[in-house]
Amino acid sequence: MLNFEFQNPTKIIFGKNSISRIGIEIKKRGVTKLLLLYGKNSIFRNGVYDQAVLSLKENGIDFVELGGVKPNPVLSKVEEAVMLCKKEKLDGILAIGGGSVLDSAKAVGAGFYLDDIWSIFDGRRIAEKSLPVFTILTISATGSEMNSGGVITKEDEMKKWPFRAGFESFPKVSIIDPSVQASLPANQTVNGAIDALSHIFEYYFDGAKESEIQDEIAESMMRVIIKHVQILLKEPDNYDSRAQLAWCATMALNGSTAIGRNYGDWASHMLEHSVSAFYDIAHGAGLAIMFPAWMKYNYKHNLKKFARFAEKVFGIYSGADEEKAINGIEELIKLYKKFQAPVSLKEIGVKESDLNKLVENASLRLPLGRLKLMYKNDIEEIFRIAY
Amino acid sequence: MLNFEFQNPTKIIFGKNSISRIGIEIKKRGVTKLLLLYGKNSIFRNGVYDQAVLSLKENGIDFVELGGVKPNPVLSKVEEAVMLCKKEKLDGILAIGGGSVLDSAKAVGAGFYLDDIWSIFDGRRIAEKSLPVFTILTISATGSEMNSGGVITKEDEMKKWPFRAGFESFPKVSIIDPSVQASLPANQTVNGAIDALSHIFEYYFDGAKESEIQDEIAESMMRVIIKHVQILLKEPDNYDSRAQLAWCATMALNGSTAIGRNYGDWASHMLEHSVSAFYDIAHGAGLAIMFPAWMKYNYKHNLKKFARFAEKVFGIYSGADEEKAINGIEELIKLYKKFQAPVSLKEIGVKESDLNKLVENASLRLPLGRLKLMYKNDIEEIFRIAY
Repeated sequence: MLNFEFQNPTKIIFGKNSISRIGIEIKKRGVTKLLLLYGKNSIFRNGVYDQAVLSLKENGIDFVELGGVKPNPVLSKVEEAVMLCKKEKLDGILAIGGGSVLDSAKAVGAGFYLDDIWSIFDGRRIAEKSLPVFTILTISATGSEMNSGGVITKEDEMKKWPFRAGFESFPKVSIIDPSVQASLPANQTVNGAIDALSHIFEYYFDGAKESEIQDEIAESMMRVIIKHVQILLKEPDNYDSRAQLAWCATMALNGSTAIGRNYGDWASHMLEHSVSAFYDIAHGAGLAIMFPAWMKYNYKHNLKKFARFAEKVFGIYSGADEEKAINGIEELIKLYKKFQAPVSLKEIGVKESDLNKLVENASLRLPLGRLKLMYKNDIEEIFRIAY
Repeated sequence: MLNFEFQNPTKIIFGKNSISRIGIEIKKRGVTKLLLLYGKNSIFRNGVYDQAVLSLKENGIDFVELGGVKPNPVLSKVEEAVMLCKKEKLDGILAIGGGSVLDSAKAVGAGFYLDDIWSIFDGRRIAEKSLPVFTILTISATGSEMNSGGVITKEDEMKKWPFRAGFESFPKVSIIDPSVQASLPANQTVNGAIDALSHIFEYYFDGAKESEIQDEIAESMMRVIIKHVQILLKEPDNYDSRAQLAWCATMALNGSTAIGRNYGDWASHMLEHSVSAFYDIAHGAGLAIMFPAWMKYNYKHNLKKFARFAEKVFGIYSGADEEKAINGIEELIKLYKKFQAPVSLKEIGVKESDLNKLVENASLRLPLGRLKLMYKNDIEEIFRIAY
């Protein structure tokens, strides 16, 4: 087990009927007038907006609304929100939505204290300060509800990059009521699950010397996610399965899966970001394509781990390590097909002539990855496999 | 999965050579003169004291020392330490040791703000304030390094009770360097592991509706602890096994195993506290006796879970649920014998004529437990089984 630091200050309130508790949690922390940030209209249909607003009003918390955060959230929207916070003298942010809204809220909270927001994306600085951010999660996927990170697209340069932030950017309180996810379309449930699985993969396959307890926990989470997504495809309102998936997705990127690891590989995520910077597909759908392609290209660099993955997650016990490893990756692709997720770039409308553009975009900051350091020729190969 | 709240603010610094980082962490938080609390002399022999003191001095942090905290820590020592903090105008506490020193440090930190310290033990109040507590862990067992709780004995009344504390009682920073545990005697390693296993059991068997991810994680931790203790009995300085055991013990009582559960059963712990209030045995050794006895008495109230335990932890797949359950408990007892832990009260010198005294002591606050509410006659039966 490698040395590590762990600290996560976010308070999680999890379960049925928990949304009504948001007002009192915000009030306790001295916020008086906040930015209510959201994306599309689904929060009006599923009652989440009404429950949250009632709780704010009951606790005397004033707010200014801003909707329209897009699924692959953009920097211009973040800048618009920062302007609004300054103009209206807001002292906190409540994000209601999925990863895109939550990531945007954190970028706004940090951006409030910065002259140049992009400086926390391109490596010039780390966000040290933030307006306090509160969240009500409506789709389990990115894990943004319990970490300090996020990903935003700078549209004019087609850069979809993560920002670096410190302790202040963790949400103060995140509310996760899995029952509000019962009305999600199947593809959104699936994309969320693939995103969560991919976060677990990034650490599991990062090439660190194995740490048995972390491997066991990661495999437990993978098995539970795979099982309960399949239940949800038949019974979308199965509360227990929603709860299992939701808590696994939160844990997948709250730092606990990173313990004793080598910081994660993250090449697959960066490759996917290039895809969804150009094509407006869900991050989870992009990962369904790019992660197995990365695996096919790289499994030889950690054969034992890929064989273990096949065994513990898909019950593949026969064959030599290489055979197991390959079969494990094939099982994952089969699973994603069963989920009706795309498994090739062609399926989502990428033209062969566009591949170069994607390779160029993904090669802006090299090398990628940790299991194997990846340069432009590696990236080219993986896009070819993914095509 | 039951509704839950989760928040744990403690910063963990884990790994080799991490003790030297304590000074800077304390300085960052504005503490200038602290109580350096410890137990026996082992911290002078294994170099932990020297490393810590050097780091304090390098960071200009003044301190007053108090040693002599006993393995089953007592209230009079806590009161002595509170007096010292007041007299010397100390503004923080650094605990170096195992659970007894850490628990005492938290009681001192809270007691500093209370007229009557025992009021947080007997249910009259919850500790809301505390001096900031920092810890350097020297034996993995109680999980005290990453939670707000503790257990202290009021000697004049022979009450060994836990206290109730709020957010301020979490250690600010805990340093866990597993390599310093290489010199522990085998019985201390074993007792620590049994304590950690027992914490996992308390939640796992608390009768809450099963939550698959939490069950899987709990079973992972049990398997890993059992495997690595056996390695450590042969190779006490195996760093990876020390690290596996250490992190499992921390997780076992940092709130993560409590998620979605019914708050834990805790009857076995309360029964053990009565034993170690009278007999000066290690908490882990007492649990090796009392937990299997509680299991034998109560397995019928959650047969399915006990059968699952036998299967997932000891690989017992054959037989009906009841047979599996019984065999699983027998395997646990066999394991504890292999660990050379005591498995009966007789072995540790309890006389049959003393049983009544133990039953009376354990029956001061009834009922105990959650899986099955336990009254005096139940407690009597369990002590009889344990004898």
